[in-house]
Amino acid sequence: MADKKFFTCTGPYNGSQLAEIANAELRGNSDAVYDDVSSLGHAQSNHVSFLDNRKYLTTFKGSQAGLCIVHPDLADEAPEGMNLLLTHEPYMAYAKIARTFYPDQTPSEQISERAYISPTAKIGTGVCIEPGVYIGDNVTIGDRTWLKANCVINNGVKIGEDCVISQNVTISHSHISNAVTIHPGCQIGQDGFGFASGVQGHVRIPQLGRVIIHDHVNIGANTTIDRGAGPDTIIGAGTQIDNLVQIGHNVQLGQGCVIVSQAGVSGSTKIGNFVVIAGQAGLAGHLEIGDGVTIAAKAGVMNNIASGRTVGGFPAIAQRDWLRQISIVSKLVKKKN
Amino acid sequence: MADKKFFTCTGPYNGSQLAEIANAELRGNSDAVYDDVSSLGHAQSNHVSFLDNRKYLTTFKGSQAGLCIVHPDLADEAPEGMNLLLTHEPYMAYAKIARTFYPDQTPSEQISERAYISPTAKIGTGVCIEPGVYIGDNVTIGDRTWLKANCVINNGVKIGEDCVISQNVTISHSHISNAVTIHPGCQIGQDGFGFASGVQGHVRIPQLGRVIIHDHVNIGANTTIDRGAGPDTIIGAGTQIDNLVQIGHNVQLGQGCVIVSQAGVSGSTKIGNFVVIAGQAGLAGHLEIGDGVTIAAKAGVMNNIASGRTVGGFPAIAQRDWLRQISIVSKLVKKKN
Amino acid sequence: MADKKFFTCTGPYNGSQLAEIANAELRGNSDAVYDDVSSLGHAQSNHVSFLDNRKYLTTFKGSQAGLCIVHPDLADEAPEGMNLLLTHEPYMAYAKIARTFYPDQTPSEQISERAYISPTAKIGTGVCIEPGVYIGDNVTIGDRTWLKANCVINNGVKIGEDCVISQNVTISHSHISNAVTIHPGCQIGQDGFGFASGVQGHVRIPQLGRVIIHDHVNIGANTTIDRGAGPDTIIGAGTQIDNLVQIGHNVQLGQGCVIVSQAGVSGSTKIGNFVVIAGQAGLAGHLEIGDGVTIAAKAGVMNNIASGRTVGGFPAIAQRDWLRQISIVSKLVKKKN
Repeated sequence: MADKKFFTCTGPYNGSQLAEIANAELRGNSDAVYDDVSSLGHAQSNHVSFLDNRKYLTTFKGSQAGLCIVHPDLADEAPEGMNLLLTHEPYMAYAKIARTFYPDQTPSEQISERAYISPTAKIGTGVCIEPGVYIGDNVTIGDRTWLKANCVINNGVKIGEDCVISQNVTISHSHISNAVTIHPGCQIGQDGFGFASGVQGHVRIPQLGRVIIHDHVNIGANTTIDRGAGPDTIIGAGTQIDNLVQIGHNVQLGQGCVIVSQAGVSGSTKIGNFVVIAGQAGLAGHLEIGDGVTIAAKAGVMNNIASGRTVGGFPAIAQRDWLRQISIVSKLVKKKN
Repeated sequence: MADKKFFTCTGPYNGSQLAEIANAELRGNSDAVYDDVSSLGHAQSNHVSFLDNRKYLTTFKGSQAGLCIVHPDLADEAPEGMNLLLTHEPYMAYAKIARTFYPDQTPSEQISERAYISPTAKIGTGVCIEPGVYIGDNVTIGDRTWLKANCVINNGVKIGEDCVISQNVTISHSHISNAVTIHPGCQIGQDGFGFASGVQGHVRIPQLGRVIIHDHVNIGANTTIDRGAGPDTIIGAGTQIDNLVQIGHNVQLGQGCVIVSQAGVSGSTKIGNFVVIAGQAGLAGHLEIGDGVTIAAKAGVMNNIASGRTVGGFPAIAQRDWLRQISIVSKLVKKKN
Repeated sequence: MADKKFFTCTGPYNGSQLAEIANAELRGNSDAVYDDVSSLGHAQSNHVSFLDNRKYLTTFKGSQAGLCIVHPDLADEAPEGMNLLLTHEPYMAYAKIARTFYPDQTPSEQISERAYISPTAKIGTGVCIEPGVYIGDNVTIGDRTWLKANCVINNGVKIGEDCVISQNVTISHSHISNAVTIHPGCQIGQDGFGFASGVQGHVRIPQLGRVIIHDHVNIGANTTIDRGAGPDTIIGAGTQIDNLVQIGHNVQLGQGCVIVSQAGVSGSTKIGNFVVIAGQAGLAGHLEIGDGVTIAAKAGVMNNIASGRTVGGFPAIAQRDWLRQISIVSKLVKKKN
């Protein structure tokens, strides 16, 4: 049960309403109403829950949930009296229902007197600008965008509609599209790490590109995205980036990618659509990574990867080969003992 | 010698006072007074120093320190005329004495006019609120807590007594207990990295839990701790977290853990008491790590670990086995040459 | 072509001027003028470009660039009509020319009323202090230094001339020399990670040192540098540090080092001059790393390294040996198949 101090629940909803929201088939009582979502183990008769992993089948069989979202193949395992929402994508259905009970907060229009806003900035309607925000010259902020306390938007930056720019974020040299969420402490658009090195030391190269972020991107806390050196750094629509990730200059990320915490992508690497990069993985610069590639946690990618491949290890190779290496080395040790 | 511009020394203290503070046995002159702490190599006759590592025995033998904290077994190695504080825990004794000469700074009560404080916030006595601080609705701040410049405390957050919340920190959806120190740039309580992925892209799952931080926790600079997805993310009492660490949603850390810089713990992993996770190590999600486990630097933990074990490598195995693997592979290379 | 919303170009310049700036030999028309810099593939007849890597020789041969910086050995490969700037360091020459077209921005003198400045702070001439900045007691800020929005400079900190301290940065217990650039979200001078551990838990050791940063250092976004425990943490002149890097207490970095993103250096390690530490590498504490050492990406350094060596792997060994290990293990797997 979510702490009411932090979360506001919009329920109740009845079974028919939830079936429509989840695009699922209701089996059971369509009039019963539900007040909240909950996990299988904690749910009561007025709660909606879900089963997405056979590992939790036993918990499912003993669950008190009034309504449960489940794959049709598992419907027969449900305890007696439990109403069901049948769908081939139970977790997606749960996401939609949970977002119905707990929709994203929308800001109330306000412009704090404690914010600094350049007279040349263009601010849309329904925008919320909290105390301590800095908005530079010629900035454009789209309708209903929420600038949270102490974030900094530098000269010329464009931010679209329905964005959330969180606390202590800095954005410069960037165009940000609609419905983008940027978590606290994220730093976007600063100088890339480019310099010429000679006998007298390093001379920084002017970084003349931008950061372009497309619709529906989420970027985690304390993540850093450098602007391009000449070309732009580009984050494709719908891409999800976790905390403490590094995106170097000129990197291009495709649509729908998932970049897990503490991963890093070096400069000028191009990544296709729906690529998954797991935690603490690192990619060298100037690579081409195809669509649908999966890169395992802690992998170190030194070469291009063709679409659809799964790689692991360092230097990263086909995940299957990497697992074999681990197994063989492990057997060598046992033989010696 | 600490730079007086930054540090204020409370000395002098005499040998008897220091013996009592350190809970150690004084051997030598109890009336001699000491003005400061210093390292063995730099200490003078009016300084207190310590020997905690036999590696520095030679330095100890030549040290000018007036008073030295040392294990009883090494007392006979001391140079003539050096007064000694004998204890089985010299480094702990040094910690106590150094904290006596240089106690934690306490803030002077002030509430800056340049801070934004919601009228519904409850502020204790002796609280220091510096310029640029943001305090949201229904926040509670305990007595003598210090909110440093430009930190942001969001709606509903509770912070206990004697806490230090440093500059450019953001805290939301959290309950923080007493005597907790949070270093600059730390981001706590934001959305976890949870979404359902389907053919039409990723749909964020509302993250309905909180972050609960118990007494005497220290959290390093630019570290990120996500709030729970449903259950809470919990940091046990006395746990020490270094800089740039990632703690995922629903993670539970026990008491007295030590998490070194750039380590990451993935979502829903439960960690026992007094666990040490060294630098750049990573833990997969949904694991159970027993009490007293040590995880070596850069290890990648993919499986549960029983209490008391020491693991290393990736995938992490018993540290001993990992060291053997390294040795065997290294010999293979030599054989080929 | 740089987005004029974000970048101001100072051109045009003619060939003679650019030859002098780049300290290069002009071959071709000295009066032709150039408006901008561009990449080989995009450059037009009014643009300056460069060739630094034989990989791009084909692009060079087909380039429309009016003027190209190139090594004398490759001059004969140039397309007809292209003017050339011949130099043995084409990338360095490009850096100088690009910095001429796009010089570092200099701030206009201003002190925002929305900044908090202690009455005991000493502020030089030509200083720019943006809104939301906090400057504590007895701080010294040198001439022409630029303090960007919401950065925090704590009591006693000294910052030299011509520095840029970016948004959401916190600096405490530090002396910063001239022409230092610190990127957004960087946290400098906080407590190191030092404590004594006993049966009753961990006791923090007062961290009584400072951070000393020498001339012409660049530090990336969200990087953390802890102050010393007793000795100082020192960053040598001209050193370049990327984003999300961790520098522990008492670390000494020499001159002209390059530390790439997400690398970490543990406490008390001393690093020589012109050392390169690639991305996600980690160094244990209390090590000595000689001059001119190169540490490969993701390496884990557990031992001292003599000057001039190149190491990789974990535990890090000579790069050549590490590559051999990879090759041998890879062959073992093939044999088994």
